[in-house]
Order: sequence, then C-alpha cells, then structure tokens
Amino acid sequence: MKVLNVVGQRVPMHDAAAKITGQAQYTDDLVLPGMLFGKLVRSTVAHGRIKSIDVSKAKALPGVKGVITGMDIPDRVYGIVPKAKDEHALAREKVRYIGDEVAAVVAIDQETAEEAARLITVEYEELPAVFDPLDAIKEGAPLVHENTPGNVSAQIHKEFGDLEAGFAASDYVFEDSYYTHAQNHAPMEPHAALASYDALNGDLTLWSGTQIPYFLKRNLSTTLVIPEQNIRVIKPKVGGGFGQKIDMFAKDFCACWFAKELGRPVKFLYDREEVFQSTRQRHPMYLTLKTGVSKEGKIIAQKITAHADGGAYNSTAPLMITLSCFFVMIPYKIENLVYEGYHVYTNKPVGGAMRGHGIPQPRFAIERQIDQIAKRIGVDASEMRLLNAIEAGEPHPAGFIINTCGFADSVREASKAIGWAEKRGKLPFGRGVGIACASFPSGVANMSHLASGCVVQLSSEGRVSVLSGAADIGQGAETVIAQIVAERVGVPMEDVHITAADTGLCPLDAGTFGSGVTVRAGNAALNAANDIRAQLFPVVAEALGCEVDEIEAANRLFWVRDDPDRSVGMRDILRQYQYIDRSLPIVGRGAWVPPADSATTLLTNNGNLSPNYSFMTQAAEVEVDLETGRVNVIKVLTAHDCGQPINPMLVEGQLEGSILGGIGYALYEDSTCIDGQQHNPSFLDYGFPTMMELPEMEGIHIDTDDPIGPFGAKEAGEGTQLAPAPAIVNAIADAIGVDFDRLPVTPDMILAALKKQREEAAGEAR
Amino acid sequence: MKVLNVVGQRVPMHDAAAKITGQAQYTDDLVLPGMLFGKLVRSTVAHGRIKSIDVSKAKALPGVKGVITGMDIPDRVYGIVPKAKDEHALAREKVRYIGDEVAAVVAIDQETAEEAARLITVEYEELPAVFDPLDAIKEGAPLVHENTPGNVSAQIHKEFGDLEAGFAASDYVFEDSYYTHAQNHAPMEPHAALASYDALNGDLTLWSGTQIPYFLKRNLSTTLVIPEQNIRVIKPKVGGGFGQKIDMFAKDFCACWFAKELGRPVKFLYDREEVFQSTRQRHPMYLTLKTGVSKEGKIIAQKITAHADGGAYNSTAPLMITLSCFFVMIPYKIENLVYEGYHVYTNKPVGGAMRGHGIPQPRFAIERQIDQIAKRIGVDASEMRLLNAIEAGEPHPAGFIINTCGFADSVREASKAIGWAEKRGKLPFGRGVGIACASFPSGVANMSHLASGCVVQLSSEGRVSVLSGAADIGQGAETVIAQIVAERVGVPMEDVHITAADTGLCPLDAGTFGSGVTVRAGNAALNAANDIRAQLFPVVAEALGCEVDEIEAANRLFWVRDDPDRSVGMRDILRQYQYIDRSLPIVGRGAWVPPADSATTLLTNNGNLSPNYSFMTQAAEVEVDLETGRVNVIKVLTAHDCGQPINPMLVEGQLEGSILGGIGYALYEDSTCIDGQQHNPSFLDYGFPTMMELPEMEGIHIDTDDPIGPFGAKEAGEGTQLAPAPAIVNAIADAIGVDFDRLPVTPDMILAALKKQREEAAGEAR
Repeated sequence: MKVLNVVGQRVPMHDAAAKITGQAQYTDDLVLPGMLFGKLVRSTVAHGRIKSIDVSKAKALPGVKGVITGMDIPDRVYGIVPKAKDEHALAREKVRYIGDEVAAVVAIDQETAEEAARLITVEYEELPAVFDPLDAIKEGAPLVHENTPGNVSAQIHKEFGDLEAGFAASDYVFEDSYYTHAQNHAPMEPHAALASYDALNGDLTLWSGTQIPYFLKRNLSTTLVIPEQNIRVIKPKVGGGFGQKIDMFAKDFCACWFAKELGRPVKFLYDREEVFQSTRQRHPMYLTLKTGVSKEGKIIAQKITAHADGGAYNSTAPLMITLSCFFVMIPYKIENLVYEGYHVYTNKPVGGAMRGHGIPQPRFAIERQIDQIAKRIGVDASEMRLLNAIEAGEPHPAGFIINTCGFADSVREASKAIGWAEKRGKLPFGRGVGIACASFPSGVANMSHLASGCVVQLSSEGRVSVLSGAADIGQGAETVIAQIVAERVGVPMEDVHITAADTGLCPLDAGTFGSGVTVRAGNAALNAANDIRAQLFPVVAEALGCEVDEIEAANRLFWVRDDPDRSVGMRDILRQYQYIDRSLPIVGRGAWVPPADSATTLLTNNGNLSPNYSFMTQAAEVEVDLETGRVNVIKVLTAHDCGQPINPMLVEGQLEGSILGGIGYALYEDSTCIDGQQHNPSFLDYGFPTMMELPEMEGIHIDTDDPIGPFGAKEAGEGTQLAPAPAIVNAIADAIGVDFDRLPVTPDMILAALKKQREEAAGEAR
Repeated sequence: MKVLNVVGQRVPMHDAAAKITGQAQYTDDLVLPGMLFGKLVRSTVAHGRIKSIDVSKAKALPGVKGVITGMDIPDRVYGIVPKAKDEHALAREKVRYIGDEVAAVVAIDQETAEEAARLITVEYEELPAVFDPLDAIKEGAPLVHENTPGNVSAQIHKEFGDLEAGFAASDYVFEDSYYTHAQNHAPMEPHAALASYDALNGDLTLWSGTQIPYFLKRNLSTTLVIPEQNIRVIKPKVGGGFGQKIDMFAKDFCACWFAKELGRPVKFLYDREEVFQSTRQRHPMYLTLKTGVSKEGKIIAQKITAHADGGAYNSTAPLMITLSCFFVMIPYKIENLVYEGYHVYTNKPVGGAMRGHGIPQPRFAIERQIDQIAKRIGVDASEMRLLNAIEAGEPHPAGFIINTCGFADSVREASKAIGWAEKRGKLPFGRGVGIACASFPSGVANMSHLASGCVVQLSSEGRVSVLSGAADIGQGAETVIAQIVAERVGVPMEDVHITAADTGLCPLDAGTFGSGVTVRAGNAALNAANDIRAQLFPVVAEALGCEVDEIEAANRLFWVRDDPDRSVGMRDILRQYQYIDRSLPIVGRGAWVPPADSATTLLTNNGNLSPNYSFMTQAAEVEVDLETGRVNVIKVLTAHDCGQPINPMLVEGQLEGSILGGIGYALYEDSTCIDGQQHNPSFLDYGFPTMMELPEMEGIHIDTDDPIGPFGAKEAGEGTQLAPAPAIVNAIADAIGVDFDRLPVTPDMILAALKKQREEAAGEAR
C-alpha cells in the first residue's frame, strides 16, 4: 500500500470535529431571516383518482402563507433519466401509492404548517391497485401509469455469446429462482430543503441534502421553468445518502416554488415516516437463473431473468436495470450470457438507487446459486469461484477494460483467512462459513454530464482553497480530495480547505453515485493541483537554482531531489510570487472525464463502462441459534482490491458500514409493505443492525496499482455491500444445510426450515 | 459619459431586492447550531487604574458559559498601523475612556449575558483625565498612555517649497484658526461578530461586519496567536461602514476567543450606545492656517498646523494625520507649503477613519479661509479658486501624477449652475450661496497589502461566478465589479454572481477604505475577465472563422466586428468548450496593484499617492431663519469629475449620501462628549439629517477618461463629502455676513452671532 506524505495516510475526516460537536450545519440547521416552514399532504390510498381537494380550511388558518396542489404548478415531470421522467412534485389527477404527494402548505412555523396540512381534505375515487411486479405484468392488471401498458417502464435484453450453444456444451444446467426484498437506506439525516429567491435577479438558491447538486439544478430548472443559470444548489452537510438522496423530491420543488411565490425563504423537512415511505428504497427483485456448467464447475452459459418492483415511479429505473444487467459480467468470466430485466410499476413506495444499485439482487442470486451448484456437482465452492475468476488484461465480452484485478487473490485470501479448508462443511451443526464475491465500477463512464472540475487557489499565506463540485454525503469525499491536493501541492492536510457541492461556486461535478467520486473528482483535483505546481514550480526552481522536474514538495517545503539541503519554504516562495514580483493570484484548474475509449452510447451498447473496477471476496462465519432461529454473524472478512486507498481509515469505515448494510440486507432490514401500506417506517421498527449485531470484521488489502485512478485508487464502499448477504446465507447453508432463496432470512424462516428438516429426517427415518 | 452594454448603465445593486425584502443576511441575522451570546463590560470612568474585577457573581449565574478579563488573554495589541498598535481587546491595567472594554461574558442567550455583565463589579483607582488635545499636549497633563509623553502618538511635519520665501513674496498673509468637532458614522447596522472554531483543524471562522476582512484576519492572528492561514474572515452584508468598520474591535476578538475556548459558536452584537461610544468617530481637529496670497488671490504659501483629538487609542492615527497632510496638496497648486499635524491622545472615545479620513477638517479650514481672504482682498471667491486650480499633466510638488483633472471645469460649472454671478452677495439678507472644492484619491498607493485579486469562473451553462476579496459595505462594490466582469465577458448583468470578502474563498484584497475599491478591485476583475476572454475567444474565433481580435462580445453573443451577421451564442461556444472538446473549467485570474511608479515608502515620502484623483466643486444655497437660527439648505449642486462612472446611479447614491453627511457635519451631527461622557449616543439624540433636511441635489458630470481606472473610472463617494460643509458655511456667511470658524454651526451660534451683529450695528449707529 502506498503511504505518501498525505495520500495513503489515516487522516481523520476534515469535518469530523464539526460533526461531533454539533457545529456542522445540515440543511435543517440553516436559519434564514423570515423563514417559513412547509408540510406536504400525502395520499392515504394506494391508487386513486383525485376527485377534489378542499384547501379552504387550511388557507383560513392564521399563520398559513400558501397552499398549492398539483393543478397549481406547471405540468412538468422530473426524474433521473431524461426519457423516463414520470413524477410530478404534486400529483395532478391520480395518486399512485400511499405517501404520494397531493398538496403542500407553508406557514410561519412548523406546527402551523402541520395543522394546516391536516385540515386539507382530499376526496379520492379509489382504483384497483397492484402490489407485486409478477401480478402487475399480467394481462388485465391495473395500470399504475396509463401510458405504460403491462406496467413495464424499463427493460433490457442483452445477449453475450451464444446462450443455447453454451447450454448445449454444458455438463449440467440448473435453474433456480430467488427473491430479494425492499431495503431502506435509513440515513440518519432526514431529507430537507431550504430555498430563497431574489426577485431582482430571478435567482433561486436551494440548500438541499442532495447527492447530485448539478442534476438537481437541472430538474429544478425543468419543473420550475427557470433557466438553469439562475439556480444555485448548495449541499450542506449530508447525514448519509446511500443513493436515497440522488433524486429530486417534492420538498425541493415546493421549497423553491413557495420561496419564489412568497418572496421569503421556505424550509421543508421530512419526518422519519416520510423518509421511509415517500423517498426511495432498494428494488425488490424476482430473479431466475439458468446456469450451465462443466463438471469441473466452469460456468459455460447463464440466463438471468429479473423482475424489479419499481413501485409507483421510475426514479432511476432504466439505469438500475441496465447496471443490474451489465455488472453481472464481473467478477466471473461468462462467455455466453443473456440478461432479461424488467422494471415494473406497482402501487408501492418507489425504488431507487441504493448502495450497489441493482447489483446486490443478482449478486445474491448468483453467489447463492454457485454454492448450490458446487454442492450439487461435488466441487468446492471456493475453487469453483477461482475457476471462473476474471483476470486483468483479458478481452471482456461486454468490452470492459480491466487494467488491474486482484479478484483471484481475493478469493484465495478470504478463503484462507476464514479457515475455509478447516471449517467449510466441518463445523458442528448450527455453525458454518460461506464466501461470496463481487466487483464494482468506479463510476459509470457512459452517462451524460460525467465530468468533474476542480479549482484550487493558493493564498499568499499558503492557505489552499479547493472548489470541487463533488458531494460529500458523509463518506469523506471532501477529505479524500483535500488529501490529493495536499499531497500534490506539498502542504500538510490542515492547510487545505475545501468548499464543495455548491453549483454557484464550484465547477461541474457529475455527483455522488456509482462510487465514482474518488476517481473522477479525485483526478480533477489532482489535475488542478498539478496546475498549481505549473505556476509555482518555476519560481521554486529559480529560488533553488534547479530544474522544475528536480523539485520535491512536502509539508510546506520544496527541495532539490538529489540535494535535499537545497530547500526553500512555501511562505518564502509565496512572498516572491504573489502580489510582489508576480501579481497574479495562484489558481489551478483541472477537470477529468473518463477516458475517451470508454465513451459508449448511454447504457445500451457494450464498452468500458467504468474507468476501473474494484474486486472483493467476503467470507462470513455464522452461528445459528437452533432454539430461537436467530443468526449470529461471528465474523465477516473482506479481501479487497480497491486499488491504492487514498485514506485507509475511510476505506475501513466504508467497509464496516457496508458489511453492516449487508448483514441488515441478509437478516433484518425489510421495508414491509402490506396492501401498499408501509408497516415499519421508523428506526424502532425497521430494525437495522446495531452495535449488538456487529461481527468481528477484518479487511485484507489486495494490492493493485491502477493506472487510471488518482494515485492508483479505485472504488471502495459500494462493492463491499454486495457480497456479505450471500456470504452469510451461504454460511447459514453450511451451518444448517438449508438453502434459503429469499431475503431477509428471518428467525421464523429458520425455525420453519429446521422444523421441516426434522420432519423430513423423521419421515426418512420412518 | 461612456455608456456601454453594462458599464455606464444604471444597474440596480445586485442585492437590492434581498435587502429590501429582509432576506439579506447581516452578521446578526446569522444563526449557528449551539450558538452562544456575548456581552462586554465597559469602563464607567474616563481614566483609571483597575484595582480589582469581581466576576464571581457573573460566573455563578445559571446559563453563563464563560467570563474573561484583560488578564485572561494574551498581552497583544492590535491596530491599523503596525507601529501604532496600542489597543488590547480587554483593558489590562488601565481604562482610558468611558466605554473602554474591561471584561466579557458569554451565555446561552443575550438576556443572560447582559445580566451577567451587570453582575460584574470593577473597582477603579480614578486618575486625572484630559479631554482636549490642546490641554493634553501641555506640560504635566495626565498621560493617557504612559509610554507616550506629551500624549502625541503620531505627528507629521512636511515641507514643500520654501515657506518663508513664499510668505515674503506674498502681498498679504492671513492667519485664521478653525475647529471641527466629532462626527459619528452612525451606520444603520450595529457592529457584530460571530465566530466558530474547529478543534480538529484549528480553524477559526469569523463572520464580522468589517470593511477589511484580510486586515482583520491579520489582527486576529496576532492577538489570538493563531496562524493566519487558520483564520477565515467572512463579511456578511454590511449596513454601512463609512470607515467605522475598518478597525478590529473587542467583539471580534472575544467572539473568536470564546468560540475557541468553549467549542461553540459565539455572537457579539453591539447596541446603539456602544456603536456611538466605543467604536470610532471622526477626529475633532484644531487647525491654524497661515496663508500668503498675491493681490490677485494666488496662494503663494501656506502653513497648516493641526491638532487632532484622537481619543484614547490610535486606531489609524499615523495614517489619518498623513492623509490629512498630503491631501491638502490638491486641488490647489501651492508651491510652498508646510503641514504640521499632531494626533493627540485624550480620555475620550476613539477617533478613526471616517468618510474623508482626516481631510474634511483641513478642507473646511482651507475653503473657509479662501472665502474670507477673497472678501478681505476684494476678489471673487470662485475666481480665486480657479486661479489656484491644479491641472492635469503639471509637475506636482508632492509628486502626484495627475493624468486627468476636471477641476477647473468643476469650479466653472458649479458656479454657473448655482447662479454665482447673479446671486453671490446679491440675495436678500438671510439667503446666500457658497462654493467649496475638493479632490480625493482613488485609494492610497503606498500602503502595504495593497493588491486586489479576482477569480472568475464561467460555468458550462454560462453562469459567471466572481470571487473578489473586495468588501461591499453597502456602497455597491459587488455590483460595480460584476458590471465590469459582465461587460468584458460579454454577458448581461444577471448572469454574473459574485462572492466577495471571504478570506477563505476569495483572493487577497486590500479592503474598503480610501475609495480605492473601484479602481483596484475593479481592475483586478477586469484582468480576470480578460483572462476568461483569452481562454474563450480562440474557440469563438474557430467557430466564427475569424481572428481573436475581430471578436465583439455582448449579451451572450459573439460576432465578427465588421460582419455582425457572423455570430455565435455563448451556450453554443460553451458546449464546444467545456467538458466536451476541451475539458478544463474556464477560470480567469486577475490581480491589480497600483502602478510601480507610485510605490513610495509607507506614507512618509513624496510620490504618486494614488492611482488617480477625483475632483469636485460643490455649491450650496441656504436660507437662514433669522427668528430661530435654523439653516435651511435649499440646494447643493455638485460638479463632479469622477472619471467614467461604472454605474451612474450608484455614483448618484454616493453623492446624495455624502451631501447629507456634509450637511450633518456642517449643521447637526455632534457627538457631544462632556467630561468624557458621551451625551447623545442614540439615533434620537444624535440628530443626523433626515428626509426633512434633504436639499435639492444635482450632479453635473465633468467628463474625463482616466487611463488607469477600469473603463476610465475614478473615486466617487468620499470626495463629495469634503466640500458640502464649507460650501454651506460659506453660504451662511454670504447670507448673514457672519464667518463661522467652527463646526457644527448650530441655531444657538447663529442667533448669538445675529444678536452680536445687531448689537455692533447698534453700537456703530450710536
């Protein structure tokens, strides 16, 4: 692992103290003069036509400043993918799920706004609703959107190689089905928005807890009918996103709308129930895998059929189903593969991007099926994974360019570390080990709006000010970018101050999704820092009497590489540079777009979909309580090729968080929805893992040095949430011999399976 | 007057709507999570030794979070001029005026802080105090600062030509004495500060209503003992400064100190009484003028002796007395001149920079004496001014380089407009006209820290983001800078958004004082905008198939100068430029320092003290109510050479404001101090002019096109406050034949003079 002066160091997040002491400002912490408070009125029916909305009592309530319904605003839809936009800020004619927005009020305080919202009465003509994607695609099913027959709003059918020839050439063909459920991102910080409007310039400013300020700006422009250049989106601190804060929401639109209409700042804050019910969740998915293998376990052909439950709106639908498709092509070599995926509307909360975005679902199915096939054909599940492992430099069926790949090593290291040889199939009943594998892109290369820019200023006293569009949502993006700049400019971390994710101040950035920030925004920062060197180093060379390429820089000192005693300090150089001999401010500019060879048509054609790819194998050891059915995850080990970590501590944080997310996905977190009504929209009932469920965790660094990532970095943080769930369920299978095919695996399911097992054993014994 | 696309236009201030609707955020509008509130304890004696301070009751009050006295903080002094720093944030051993800071408390709310402040008891050993500078310089006078014998803390003695030879060559020599009083800036917004501290990075952020953020940063660094690069000063909206917000104050230090000590944000807000009593005021001054003239009225020699009442501390003392000295050298040619100036400590509120900064006082004396001499030797006062008028291109005794000068024209135009020939000496008793003249620098060229930088970003959708260090204090600096950038980049005003006066984000700026902002920061902005053109125009030239120097740009359109039909829009060009064909963000950088030939040693040597100079003649017509003694200023006309106005409406605003300030100086505003106690520290009692005192006002533009200022601009706003007071008092002399030699001229003084006049007339008649 590279350990340089700042890069590669375990640097604390630059805003850690501010967050811990409560000084950090999240959106709801912001207070503006004359600020008003908003509240949304939400549908109480899963599917219905709006007959009438009576806002008269709300309007009459003292302190109420504004009330709007869907008919009061432009008939403009928003969404992540241009062709799949289908959502109005407030419903116009129909509501499509319980929680859909129908009206908004603004008042002088939060209590009055909430009282006014309660005074609004909506009369619905209830329509038949549909709650399961497999029901929704049936002939005659209720249509969630009238313009989408069959309720399939996005689909992909992708073929690589020759599937039928592959099956024919296989020694065995197995078909298995799986189901994954709805998981909620459950960020600590609820969604909020605060807008203000300047009537003179027509300037709108929105502070929003968003992952993609520049994209939100674009959606606001479309729906509010305000030119993009008049909109400034600022991301305050964000208390977790995990994909849930990628979308624009009604709060964003309504805060802006009222701010413009009323000429006063307006804040909307979702309560916890709204976060669970009316933002986004991980798509539930039905998956069927038909897989042909050789008798040694080589995967010859695979067909995957997936039906994703999208809920009432598209959000990222076409993107999600495409990612789900393309990224089943790593980390295994599968020459002949067909993926058929469908995104299906239902009258339920809306699916969206969530850590892994469309990939944990097939990953669960694939990794489960590998274990099942290995058992069926009598090969070792770890060996079977190695046999199919992708390698660097090989031609890839989908056109991925994989420059570095520590995958096979990760399988070996994780298996060794968990004690695979000694434990697998050899532990007492109730205890078992499992592994699962994954790979993840470092951002997706073929979407529009993909660039990142960076501007770095070096002040006359040596303070480095970075402007980056990148959106830190708690993962530490700002710290990583600051480290890259500090390393390259040659100053300690504390000299670097970063202002990020403010579309009015910072250059363009694609946003925080798909784990692209470190590579994309990091490279932009690296380039901007290089531009600082280009301006500064000639002065240093003059001072030191050497050539520019002989200069080393660190910790505010410059020296001649081969003669370190010839050195000069940053302050001395700046005195020579700025405003005295040379009067220009030192400003570096940099940008980065994925390499040109990766530019393919928007998520349809093959090509190199990402600048680089991370790889990981995760191994779990579990103990199943045979009395209660409760699964105790004892340890989860991760052998991880994330390239060169810019900040090993932040990589560990991501690793630990994603493992807990994987444990939640495997065993606990289920956004239960019955007849369209969410039943556990609270931290108390939802039940994500806490410190009590924390396993022993260890990361094993697989060393690769990627040529594309800044200082060799690759993705870290999403990929590692893919494999824990199948690894744990594989370990459960090892522990009790039961192959679960749906998530989450609950104590009830385990007790039922054990009971069935005992009954079958008794039957066999009879 | 140049009227271009944006420059020269009557553009409203870019933040006018935000201010009018109450959305703009002044320092006290800022709210941070966990914010605490502070209050200062001030001296109740004019001069005393602190025997003891009992803070026990304050500390015991529930809700109090911290109490400090002068002994709890580093023994570090602050001030504007390095060698003249003499002020502690909290007094250590002595208090030197009523209002001097002795302790500070911080509590959970403002009420608790105030209660705690009242609970602090200070025991003083009272010392003899001195309240007049002419007493203070006497042998044996009490010493305000023990290390300053004679209480003279700054002085200047400057000789040009040969004074005695001049007097000898004169036909007449007259000696007259004058006195000007204390005027308060009385800004609408009281002084406030809000600080927060990040314990991880050691980063301190201060929001302060300051005119010089970069200088405040430096003073904070010295007194708090924190490296400058760890301090970020942000200026929110400022509701008027007029020089009063140039200094650092106890509120700034104490907010920072407590924020660091307590780990919570801390706000200090001065009440109105504190603003009047414990910030700054215009220096009262005693002036004696000995002037030799020819029989035609040509000034041959002049000696000016000035004693400024500095109050208890230096603030800008050496600077003020030097400005007062050097700028008596314009707008008249005086070959033989001696200026002897003394800044004297007294036990009174502190003098500091105020609109005109040391110059209104001698200007009043000089312009009064010219009228008196003209009358005595029987020449026309307007003709006498013309006879002595400075002209462009002439060698200047002090080394000023005057490239453009509309002064003589201003005398002619103002005289003509007021009807000098018809009215002067010819109106009925009680009614009269007067003129007075002035000149002012556009910033001072020979101070340290004088550069301005600017960074301009052009976003992919055409939004222009300007980072400027310049401090808009309500005068419209940000609007002017934005206009310059808009003009040069070729976009309408609404496309330009400016972030200014944030030392963490913006490049260095010298600050807002001496009317240097438009020339200095405006030129920096112009240079940065030129850098944008350098990056953009090659792409435009390629698109238009022309040379770069054939391109015209305005209103988001580029065209070939001689073939306007060949044009291309900004959006099209940006699409070709940013992130597609060319991936760098477009970032322009610019800086400006006064021309090298003006660099002289800090305010001692001769030289070109300013990049350029404005000139003005102001004419007043007054009516004296012979019953009440009240003076009604009927009209004030200004013939004004401020070069080419960037924004004529803002120039008019400055003109009108400064005329009201001049009327206040002449007739009303008197910060009365009796035995060291201010007697009218409130808007109600202080009595500045209101709408009721508004005269008819007219500006006459004298057209010059300066080669140094951006688009030909020169100073506007300070110079025009110099002449109204002498013009009005000259008009009073014309109206009632009484020559007042002290300010303000109150109804009491007029009634007494009229009474004396009647008695003398009666005596003569007897």
